Amino acid sequence: LDESARQNALARQVRLTKPPGALGRLEELAVHLAAMQGTEQPRADRVHIVVFAGDHGVAAEGISAFPQVVTAEMVKNFARGGAAISVAARVLGARLEVVNLGTVVDTGALDGVTRCDLGPGTANFVIGPAMDEHQCVRALAAGRHAAERARLAGADVFIGGEMGIGNTTAAAALACALLSAPAEALAGPGTGLSPDGVAHKITVIDRALSLHRDHLGRPFEALRRVGGFEIAALTGGYLSCAQMGLPVLVDGFISTVAALTAERLRPGAVDWFILSHASAEPGHRQLVQALGIPPLLDLGLRLGEGSGAAVAVPLLRIACALHNQMATFAEAEVSERH
Amino acid sequence: LDESARQNALARQVRLTKPPGALGRLEELAVHLAAMQGTEQPRADRVHIVVFAGDHGVAAEGISAFPQVVTAEMVKNFARGGAAISVAARVLGARLEVVNLGTVVDTGALDGVTRCDLGPGTANFVIGPAMDEHQCVRALAAGRHAAERARLAGADVFIGGEMGIGNTTAAAALACALLSAPAEALAGPGTGLSPDGVAHKITVIDRALSLHRDHLGRPFEALRRVGGFEIAALTGGYLSCAQMGLPVLVDGFISTVAALTAERLRPGAVDWFILSHASAEPGHRQLVQALGIPPLLDLGLRLGEGSGAAVAVPLLRIACALHNQMATFAEAEVSERH
Repeated sequence: LDESARQNALARQVRLTKPPGALGRLEELAVHLAAMQGTEQPRADRVHIVVFAGDHGVAAEGISAFPQVVTAEMVKNFARGGAAISVAARVLGARLEVVNLGTVVDTGALDGVTRCDLGPGTANFVIGPAMDEHQCVRALAAGRHAAERARLAGADVFIGGEMGIGNTTAAAALACALLSAPAEALAGPGTGLSPDGVAHKITVIDRALSLHRDHLGRPFEALRRVGGFEIAALTGGYLSCAQMGLPVLVDGFISTVAALTAERLRPGAVDWFILSHASAEPGHRQLVQALGIPPLLDLGLRLGEGSGAAVAVPLLRIACALHNQMATFAEAEVSERH
Repeated sequence: LDESARQNALARQVRLTKPPGALGRLEELAVHLAAMQGTEQPRADRVHIVVFAGDHGVAAEGISAFPQVVTAEMVKNFARGGAAISVAARVLGARLEVVNLGTVVDTGALDGVTRCDLGPGTANFVIGPAMDEHQCVRALAAGRHAAERARLAGADVFIGGEMGIGNTTAAAALACALLSAPAEALAGPGTGLSPDGVAHKITVIDRALSLHRDHLGRPFEALRRVGGFEIAALTGGYLSCAQMGLPVLVDGFISTVAALTAERLRPGAVDWFILSHASAEPGHRQLVQALGIPPLLDLGLRLGEGSGAAVAVPLLRIACALHNQMATFAEAEVSERH
């Protein structure tokens, strides 16, 4: 972060025609973006959204309210413009890219979808590791490459999204590993499990944590063993953004687990992350506390795809516009406080 | 509200390609707007913002961190495009109108500012009523006319803003009258009073409540005696919107007091109000509870001018776009839940 840009931005905020602090978190956002972008004129105009998709072997345990075929079906829906993130990207004028890392059902070639096929989904992590080392490394690299494409395209802000039936189970298991917490603290209804369904999901996660328990102390191993393709790709993308100095707007439960994994792999990465919203998925609260960043919105969202992050983009844009365009007391000849 | 439009909107939400309820309050917003606008395709494209300005006699009691001349100076700043609401209106492509109801310092004629001169500010309500009946009626009418102009211009959403040094004192006094609460429950730092300043403000409000105590049971009399020009205009504007069926996005502390006044004058008006944000002004919480509407944002805003409502506009827009443009399960050939 650019400390001099931060100080200049803070000094400018005090001169703008409003009581000091009256724009609350919008002031903090503008100052944070100025420090991340190393500029006096922060911006969030060019937003690059990448949705990573992948299937999960653990879906065989019956831990989702939706059938596994939906992952591939939603990849097609992203491509055709009918999904929430497709609509949000259009509204924002944001670039939307989809990276399919491996689904059970082959979608065939689709416009706007990059294929990086690591297999027909991960292995069932109740039986063995979700990914072999090569798969996990390639998934991380797929995320890194997506972040680099965003950077090359001149993005001001990077958003990663995800799609993968079963991925709240994988994300909860990974969060348990990172936080040394039991499954019941992190598992929730996901796309809409009943209380019995959540109880079963907890049992499944606990079995996986037990199976892999000797290997969960290292974040890369935790990611490989109980994560997923798209979670690893998000992690790689976030790490790359932090290294390149590209601000990240983090979405909900699964994205925040990836952000926490990135922070564990490279402490300090979190400085580049803005949490867009508090998810309705109950376990999200612990992740937010672990990262120590207050989310911007709290609208009961729990869709994923990067949709919650997309919804927060206008806040960044208006924060930047206010910071850059408001008149100072001197310019407007407005009297200052007593 | 159009119950049939609401039911159609609810039915559509269930068919969209997402787990039911996964878009949380954005779904509720779209459905509420559909019911208010009586349509299957709610929208928040055309936003009409009117900022009402007026001075307050009670400023003589030293209850603001800023000198009274700032009201007129800020009216000029609105007109020149340098204020927060000016910038926000530009970002949103919203129409911005300023209505000067009477300031201590004459601003002269200004482009984009309508004059409706009710006098050089209200009278000091510690000594007598803030307004005579004629002034209060004219201020209500000024708000009504502004709402009617918005309607004629085809507005989808109405935002009222306010500017007036001393107006958190007037708003808190009015809120005390409406809620039968003591000053200490509603008075706060406003634009930035010290704790001693807040204590003095509480004393001033308590003196006014004591002076007018036999007349505060009727909302019109409470508004007239301890309100202000811009608060009455906001109240009239909100009432008119509710009568015409134009959705209102309510701003912060002062606007919410006006919304509560409107609801007391015409119970049911509240159906047409959306609370944009939870203000940092501590008394706002009680007003939110009294209206029974959860705010959309909580960003520590406390500027007024309609700025917080403007910041919430993109949420309405994205809620409408998702509602109107997302594919259904059938259209996208996506499988539904088990």
